[in-house]
Amino acid sequence: MNRFSFSIEATDGKARTGMIAMKRGEIRTPAFMPVGTAATVKAMKPADVRNSGADIILGNTYHLMLRPGAERVARLGGLHAFMGWDRPILTDSGGYQVMSLAELRKLGEDGVSFKSHLDGSAHMLTPERSMEIQRLLGSDIVMAFDECTPFPSSRDAAAASMERSMRWAERSRAAFDDGGAHAEAAALFGIQQGAMEEDLRRISADRLIGIDFDGYAVGGLAVGEGQAEMFRVLDFAAPMLPADGPRYLMGVGKPDDIVGAVERGIDMFDCVLPTRSGRTGQAFTSMGPINIKNARFAEDSEPLDAACPCPVCGTWSRAYLHHLIRSGEILGAMLMTEHNLHFYQNLMTSLRKAISDQRLAEFSSDFRARYRGC
Amino acid sequence: MNRFSFSIEATDGKARTGMIAMKRGEIRTPAFMPVGTAATVKAMKPADVRNSGADIILGNTYHLMLRPGAERVARLGGLHAFMGWDRPILTDSGGYQVMSLAELRKLGEDGVSFKSHLDGSAHMLTPERSMEIQRLLGSDIVMAFDECTPFPSSRDAAAASMERSMRWAERSRAAFDDGGAHAEAAALFGIQQGAMEEDLRRISADRLIGIDFDGYAVGGLAVGEGQAEMFRVLDFAAPMLPADGPRYLMGVGKPDDIVGAVERGIDMFDCVLPTRSGRTGQAFTSMGPINIKNARFAEDSEPLDAACPCPVCGTWSRAYLHHLIRSGEILGAMLMTEHNLHFYQNLMTSLRKAISDQRLAEFSSDFRARYRGC
Repeated sequence: MNRFSFSIEATDGKARTGMIAMKRGEIRTPAFMPVGTAATVKAMKPADVRNSGADIILGNTYHLMLRPGAERVARLGGLHAFMGWDRPILTDSGGYQVMSLAELRKLGEDGVSFKSHLDGSAHMLTPERSMEIQRLLGSDIVMAFDECTPFPSSRDAAAASMERSMRWAERSRAAFDDGGAHAEAAALFGIQQGAMEEDLRRISADRLIGIDFDGYAVGGLAVGEGQAEMFRVLDFAAPMLPADGPRYLMGVGKPDDIVGAVERGIDMFDCVLPTRSGRTGQAFTSMGPINIKNARFAEDSEPLDAACPCPVCGTWSRAYLHHLIRSGEILGAMLMTEHNLHFYQNLMTSLRKAISDQRLAEFSSDFRARYRGC
Repeated sequence: MNRFSFSIEATDGKARTGMIAMKRGEIRTPAFMPVGTAATVKAMKPADVRNSGADIILGNTYHLMLRPGAERVARLGGLHAFMGWDRPILTDSGGYQVMSLAELRKLGEDGVSFKSHLDGSAHMLTPERSMEIQRLLGSDIVMAFDECTPFPSSRDAAAASMERSMRWAERSRAAFDDGGAHAEAAALFGIQQGAMEEDLRRISADRLIGIDFDGYAVGGLAVGEGQAEMFRVLDFAAPMLPADGPRYLMGVGKPDDIVGAVERGIDMFDCVLPTRSGRTGQAFTSMGPINIKNARFAEDSEPLDAACPCPVCGTWSRAYLHHLIRSGEILGAMLMTEHNLHFYQNLMTSLRKAISDQRLAEFSSDFRARYRGC
């Protein structure tokens, strides 16, 4: 088995469908990665995550370094053994989350010093430490350490931020390559920055290509710019990234965001939306999201989505889920999350098939006509 | 299929093992019933409850009448369809829980008026209304409406309370028999009261036998009297109940309580302990309970119980469960609950086998030598 390979099986316009092959398994693309922040996709057993159709999940360096700690996870056999998920795991670099700590962090050329949101203890993340943590976790796809440029930023600030991220990308590459056995088994992705500016995105892409990565992420989007602006940036930013490697749009998104991004050449996604919103009562359906707490569902004996083949829709009614979520029952969080993950994976399956069948435009048009976003 | 039959397959001293057969399935005895308060065994899917070995679960009239409401459950097809559990359900009468409302309730000869702990709305439970609610829920085993005598009580108060419960037992029987199709499909159990007094327990048992029930519960224990006193009362109270019907000790208990009660002739149990304590980090093991939050488990790569064949012990370490519970992760509640329910059901399987093999005394002695209770 190759360490990492990406093969494109079909294209339709800018969109592609294919397969990433890695030691721990294959990842069908376009792929959606459920978020397993603290070594668990919240409220889900790993077998049920897999059963929803997920080929890969995401773990968070920031959360895991604080609790239970990367060295501890390593002593316990790595993240896969620890949490009972034997397929690929992509880990973020921690950069995005430490930047969002606002008053608790301090940014310098070497990296970011910050205080834990759990106990106030002092920590430091640098490109080198981020690579070390991701190696200790046993990550399959390692993300370069970068700064997610704040939105909005002045052009000068965006340029300076991007330049620093590119210097950190070089240091990430070097530290990753020093990782011995892990570097021979895992993949490393670079992250394009440059805010909403086409020329900065171009500079960033060229710098990353010069360093050479297994895959390339679009960073700095889904930060409050809105879908129209995100699509405008993707229109020029995605094609700057190599066509023969996977392109990953970080932290996206709503179902209609994903459809539009796939049309623009994106292959990988992650987002907390299906899990987080499931816990609070939002269900995704083929007609758009619904809030199951709404009183109109109290005696609704229909499933969440009559078109959904998932185990939740096959067994329980909207009325039951309404009752569970209103009562604060854990089973409500479990079942809503499970349905939402199935919805997202079914969407990815449909997108892959539409690309294979060369009818993505039709699929996208039908989807937008039917789906009422929030 | 008979409406209700109880067959004893083997006895060992006062203990018995056998089978209750009902329309929705067989119940192996001695049986432990997981508690499904609000139409869910908390943090468990019904299929996983069944997979733990449960033949029957318990539902709470008090909670269900308030939310989602008995009439609503009936309109949605009954409790079985609502929650996706197709095997027998025993429902309590609501009596125990309304009595525990203390300042919120008022007791009279007709029944108990009380205010909802959810919204303060006014409600009334009588023997007739309790039977109606349990019929609306579609209960398989209906409990007579009674007063759980407070502990401690004076002898006079205990006698008066027991006498009222016996009058309510008569009214429960009459109201149940008026239930039409439900009365032809479901079973009705009476509840012995009489506090810790042998003569009152005798009077109560004789009154219940005169009314005639499908099974008989021992009520008014596990109310703070301690295990030694509970066993002292069971020594005389259990044999007063008919040997050819199942005997149910309500609200019990810890594993060692169950072993001792089975030795004294009890056939059925329910308790929130495995589910509630699982959510807060207590795991039952063959050596006794452990608190997984304890720092000594932070890097313990062993399963919760090396002797346990459950799916949780087959996959995850104490260190992982320690991390999940410390992090407040829902998956921690899910996995700890699942293990604990398996532990309880495995205990019941062992008890049934020990009785069949005529070696219950040896099993009990071994259990007490090994198990360090809390």
